[in-house]
Amino acid sequence: MDERMARMCLAAVVEPGHPAVAEAVGSYGAAQVWASLVDAGARMPLAERARRLDPDDLAARTRAAGLRFLVPGDDDWPPGLADLAGCEPVNQLSGEPVGLWVAGGGSLGALCASSVAMVGSRASTAYGDTVASDLAAELSEDGRCVVSGGAYGIDAAAHRGCLAGRTPTVAVLAAGLDEPYPGGHRPLFARVAEKGVLVSELAPGEHPTRVRFLARNRLIAALTPGTVLVEAAARSGARNTVTWANELGRVVMAVPGPITSATSVTPHRLIREAEAVLVASASDVLELLSPLGRANPRRPGERRPTDDLDADELRLFEAVPGRGSLPAGELALRAGLALPRCLAVLDQLAERGFLAQNLIGEWQLPPRRSA
Amino acid sequence: MDERMARMCLAAVVEPGHPAVAEAVGSYGAAQVWASLVDAGARMPLAERARRLDPDDLAARTRAAGLRFLVPGDDDWPPGLADLAGCEPVNQLSGEPVGLWVAGGGSLGALCASSVAMVGSRASTAYGDTVASDLAAELSEDGRCVVSGGAYGIDAAAHRGCLAGRTPTVAVLAAGLDEPYPGGHRPLFARVAEKGVLVSELAPGEHPTRVRFLARNRLIAALTPGTVLVEAAARSGARNTVTWANELGRVVMAVPGPITSATSVTPHRLIREAEAVLVASASDVLELLSPLGRANPRRPGERRPTDDLDADELRLFEAVPGRGSLPAGELALRAGLALPRCLAVLDQLAERGFLAQNLIGEWQLPPRRSA
Repeated sequence: MDERMARMCLAAVVEPGHPAVAEAVGSYGAAQVWASLVDAGARMPLAERARRLDPDDLAARTRAAGLRFLVPGDDDWPPGLADLAGCEPVNQLSGEPVGLWVAGGGSLGALCASSVAMVGSRASTAYGDTVASDLAAELSEDGRCVVSGGAYGIDAAAHRGCLAGRTPTVAVLAAGLDEPYPGGHRPLFARVAEKGVLVSELAPGEHPTRVRFLARNRLIAALTPGTVLVEAAARSGARNTVTWANELGRVVMAVPGPITSATSVTPHRLIREAEAVLVASASDVLELLSPLGRANPRRPGERRPTDDLDADELRLFEAVPGRGSLPAGELALRAGLALPRCLAVLDQLAERGFLAQNLIGEWQLPPRRSA
Repeated sequence: MDERMARMCLAAVVEPGHPAVAEAVGSYGAAQVWASLVDAGARMPLAERARRLDPDDLAARTRAAGLRFLVPGDDDWPPGLADLAGCEPVNQLSGEPVGLWVAGGGSLGALCASSVAMVGSRASTAYGDTVASDLAAELSEDGRCVVSGGAYGIDAAAHRGCLAGRTPTVAVLAAGLDEPYPGGHRPLFARVAEKGVLVSELAPGEHPTRVRFLARNRLIAALTPGTVLVEAAARSGARNTVTWANELGRVVMAVPGPITSATSVTPHRLIREAEAVLVASASDVLELLSPLGRANPRRPGERRPTDDLDADELRLFEAVPGRGSLPAGELALRAGLALPRCLAVLDQLAERGFLAQNLIGEWQLPPRRSA
């Protein structure tokens, strides 16, 4: 049996994220591990599963479902997954996947090369859905593929936002891609697959379990250079993706929300405890992901002309009435400045267009500034 | 003229936060500075103001308005203000106040000893008002005096929240206390003064200016061990109070909000750039202010019984159906565990109450867990 087929068979019988399997395949090759497994003692459950598997049937079901099976080394294999090999286990799960079933018109490797993960609560609020969708659309317009888990709530909002932009989206699922879970998202998954990719570590026919969701989360974190968390209550599966992203040295970002909302609890706690960086816009996200940083665009209203005034200039400028004019002596009194200093500062302000002297020699706001 | 009276006269003619004045008083004493000022050259505006001042009239107006004039060294003088002496100037303002006019039934020093500043946008949202008021009420119940600036918006919400608790509130104003600004808050200021304190660096009759607001902000920051920012747009006076708090080494905290709200911009930027710590509750605030820290109360829903299960235990537990039962061999297959390991883990789970064995020897969820 060739390596690719052996990897497919192993992926079909071993639970994802089983550390020993990835390690054995790395050391001995998939074909040898598969052969040992099939030959193993009768009472070993994994061997029993292996002997029950019909490789030709598996390959046929993969083709029938319109899926491709990717293995490390393929052009489409995302390099980020290799980081899972050296990563500390989370929930005792770890390891690079033995292989991945994928569907869709996009290249997984190419899309993940410029991507960002967005995850969050299934029980999201209208605020969270709007924020996730808007952020994802902006990131997509900027050329970032948004990777998420295809679940209800924030995941769906993230995929939909990305679909509305110019870059395809990637959905990483915890079940076989012949019956992508949740079933209610079939139309969404069909749209994702048009130009993007559906990904799963699980063979056709497999159903999701809690452990499989946890193993799936490690893929979302590993496929992307950073993960954005939008809404998660105190208990949330999305928290687990963040843990993976931190373990993998990825950028972890969280969107804040109203403190009155239960779904703000985990993002706020992560930000407070410096496990995540606060992001409030797509440019906040891009600033963290671009290796060279990104010129922070000037925020509207951030600067005012008077920001450049020193204290004396500001006192004097503030002492000038909104309407009418005053002599320099009165302005000096009002501003608490010595008259010579006052005269000098008045000249500076006039030169810079903040004040004007009228026909009787008094000082006033320049015409365009007065009401 | 005695020192207290000289300080009152100086405070009445010098703009607050004038660094040179505080320094001169520190070096030569207020009486001598005042005498030099009155004798200074005719063309010096400050001298002109000093000569125009009638000290007896000032004292009479202070008494008539029901005010006390506090100076450093008074029992009621808050020790935190002394930190302004060594502090870097902000907007070229600095220095401990020469004295303070106060009104109200509370002791400024005692209230500020256990206090927190809360500041924010005048143009606050309903969210910000609710959050400020709720936080202030909880802090007040915990014995913290909330100090703010008496302005519309967040300041007012903070004072009102504190009034609803068990600790009085302190309002630091940028105008004379005979006509506290804004006039629309007269009823609020009357309530503040019942058990709390109104404070101003400005003599009766003085009106607010932009520089006076900036100088006032340094007092709010200095009077308290920490400042909480609730809502501030990209440009906000409250940002200035935060700058002072940072310069003074105080704890700077910010409450997040919806990223869709313009008043979230400054809190989010401060948190993102680590100039402020995110606070989402009164206990978050108290945890930062209590010198010894505070046991973090367990958050509801943060722990589940299954959190203590290891990966094998979790796989096996998840493999057990919600209804009905399965033999150990089938569970081992489902969980991908060797049967001996499976039997051992089943026993562990049964011992801890996660699973039960039924009359035919199959495994199921214990009665109280099944539907």
